[in-house]
Amino acid sequence: MPYVNENYLKLKAGYLFPEIARRVASFCEKNPDARVIRLGIGDVTEPLPPAITGAMHRAVDEMGRRETFRGYGPEQGYDFLREAIARHDFHSRGCDISPGEIFVSDGSKCDTGNILEIFGPGNRIAVTDPVYPVYVDTNVMAGNTGPASESGEFEGLVYLKASAETGFNPPLPGGRVDIVYLCSPNNPTGTALTRRQMEEWVRYARENGSILLFDAAYEAFIQDPDLPHSIYEIPGAREVAIEFRSFSKLAGFTGVRCAFTVIPSSLEARTRDGRAVKLHALWTRRHTTKFNGVSYITQRGAEAVYTPEGQRQTREIIAFYMENARIIRETLQEAGLRVFGGVNAPYVWVETPGRIPSWEFFDTLLQQAHVVCTPGSGFGAAGEGYVRISAFNSRENVEEAMRRVRQVL
Amino acid sequence: MPYVNENYLKLKAGYLFPEIARRVASFCEKNPDARVIRLGIGDVTEPLPPAITGAMHRAVDEMGRRETFRGYGPEQGYDFLREAIARHDFHSRGCDISPGEIFVSDGSKCDTGNILEIFGPGNRIAVTDPVYPVYVDTNVMAGNTGPASESGEFEGLVYLKASAETGFNPPLPGGRVDIVYLCSPNNPTGTALTRRQMEEWVRYARENGSILLFDAAYEAFIQDPDLPHSIYEIPGAREVAIEFRSFSKLAGFTGVRCAFTVIPSSLEARTRDGRAVKLHALWTRRHTTKFNGVSYITQRGAEAVYTPEGQRQTREIIAFYMENARIIRETLQEAGLRVFGGVNAPYVWVETPGRIPSWEFFDTLLQQAHVVCTPGSGFGAAGEGYVRISAFNSRENVEEAMRRVRQVL
Repeated sequence: MPYVNENYLKLKAGYLFPEIARRVASFCEKNPDARVIRLGIGDVTEPLPPAITGAMHRAVDEMGRRETFRGYGPEQGYDFLREAIARHDFHSRGCDISPGEIFVSDGSKCDTGNILEIFGPGNRIAVTDPVYPVYVDTNVMAGNTGPASESGEFEGLVYLKASAETGFNPPLPGGRVDIVYLCSPNNPTGTALTRRQMEEWVRYARENGSILLFDAAYEAFIQDPDLPHSIYEIPGAREVAIEFRSFSKLAGFTGVRCAFTVIPSSLEARTRDGRAVKLHALWTRRHTTKFNGVSYITQRGAEAVYTPEGQRQTREIIAFYMENARIIRETLQEAGLRVFGGVNAPYVWVETPGRIPSWEFFDTLLQQAHVVCTPGSGFGAAGEGYVRISAFNSRENVEEAMRRVRQVL
Repeated sequence: MPYVNENYLKLKAGYLFPEIARRVASFCEKNPDARVIRLGIGDVTEPLPPAITGAMHRAVDEMGRRETFRGYGPEQGYDFLREAIARHDFHSRGCDISPGEIFVSDGSKCDTGNILEIFGPGNRIAVTDPVYPVYVDTNVMAGNTGPASESGEFEGLVYLKASAETGFNPPLPGGRVDIVYLCSPNNPTGTALTRRQMEEWVRYARENGSILLFDAAYEAFIQDPDLPHSIYEIPGAREVAIEFRSFSKLAGFTGVRCAFTVIPSSLEARTRDGRAVKLHALWTRRHTTKFNGVSYITQRGAEAVYTPEGQRQTREIIAFYMENARIIRETLQEAGLRVFGGVNAPYVWVETPGRIPSWEFFDTLLQQAHVVCTPGSGFGAAGEGYVRISAFNSRENVEEAMRRVRQVL
């Protein structure tokens, strides 16, 4: 009988969102008349705007006619989309990123997990705490960690603890690490790195030969014009950073699936005997051998995000969610809670009253306000005593949820 | 600086299809007036039929309205699609496969590569020769092999040599192996396993505790009513087989991306200390952690394949390609060549005249007939002296290509 990958057995059984779903289902069963409002999972609620559905309809029609039908596309994505991304997301902000350095994919979750395949064993890997759980779990699955401790931390990973004292800005590692995951604007804390902070990270990476895995899936929510949207706005980042971007939250693509990863041609890692290897070449090989490109229809939809109508329509939706975030943030502040985020990100990170445990406050909100949030402890030990509240919902639901939460508090 | 995955450096630089593309481009540059007909890469040419585009248009409209918009779907696929697959592809053929054992994905290439993640190191792995190169390359990338020999074979893999003497039916392994890749109907040889042969494989796997990775991406092309379409038509296969299926060739989805993998709940592998582990649970964890589901629009398109109109329309297209295959097969037979396949698969596997090297015959057909085929040696040492000719093209192109090839021969 074949051997299994025993690293999977180190994973904890109860992943955060299934446990939330279980508690919500149990509550709903006992309280069938309660109108539960879900501000837990970070999923969009607004429909695709007409610029995008129009482009997708045209693409479906093209696929239905022999003259315009398209079979296998380039695994890395069609030039029309890679060029639109390079122009609008990078050149317009002064970043020197070419279309050939952009790999279109079906999701940032996939990419941040799969990227580990091109790295070898023996790397010292750092994650922030709190952290998006996929970064940790995929390292466990890849065999980059030992078992989990009592507190749920995996042996072999370096945890960079963020806290209220520094506004949930993660600290630089104490020593040298090879790979660091950074997410800005951050999931779950909703905070965003400033230019100064990003410069410090690039300086750290250049001095230590580290690679930054920079997850910018929420960059479209940045409101402050002084904040960078890409790590490549920082001079020197081309030699030290891979960036992950997604259409999921930018354009409501959570059910459509399109994202992209940028690997600059200048980025290198090394063999054990010290030879430098271009990561662009390795990822090209991974992407072309184990992936077959994103649907042509989806890519035409993504391209439409960059048209003037697409820009206007997606920005309106982002503004709508950010107004939700403002309502959540201000309501909770007025109720006396300490909150972070929600200004440049669709997540509000809330200290529980009296720092009671996250799951306890989760249960209080569910039982008494019929509102679902996400317990901060699900994102790591440093998330204990916090909950994440998402701005993805209708205005009516957000206002009703905040009215109920205010009463409970 | 981080370490790279050095297994990637064992891969040979010239992957088959890029090398073909290079030679064709070079020929076209020197002969700008030549009308080259491509029967090389296995990509469909017929447009999506109306049952499918209609379903996709409706799904795009749903995504454009708030009441019917869908965000994240279940990573394993929507129930509507998993149930349609279970009913039409399995129950209708007497296979005991439930919707919960079906994992919808974005491609069989991805799945056959990614499946290795749930297996540990130390497994004895067999591939056939000739072989779909992705099986080999993904094992190399995963570290399951040593370096390649002069002949291109990777140390540590067991190669099961198929030959003309046995009609390109791969032999059972001489000893015990843990994992065997089988592809039927076969890419590249176009031959299909009979029920008897499949029974032998299931018996072998049960006796040796092996797992069969059964790639049935071309099952829709089976014409012979006595041939099984699924490994699960063989009693006992639920304990020894994973099956890969795809909408790519069945319904023209090469540019749309939808496939599925079946992992029976009864399938087990083991830890090093001998405990049995359910592979369904491991793949569920992999699929939910590193994948985010297939586009809702795509899944509605796939579902439409199973409607009466979808069945009629996709079968017409398959019949069209199979008529191409008949023309190719018969033309080459009449010209005195020895051919295999093309009866239950869209590929015709052709012995070169006088068994000259594959690339030599490739160059002859390109230079003299302006026809592109695929050199058999690109699929392994046992493919030397053969070329693969694909039936995916317009009737006009196939007839013109055969007219020219006949003249050259």
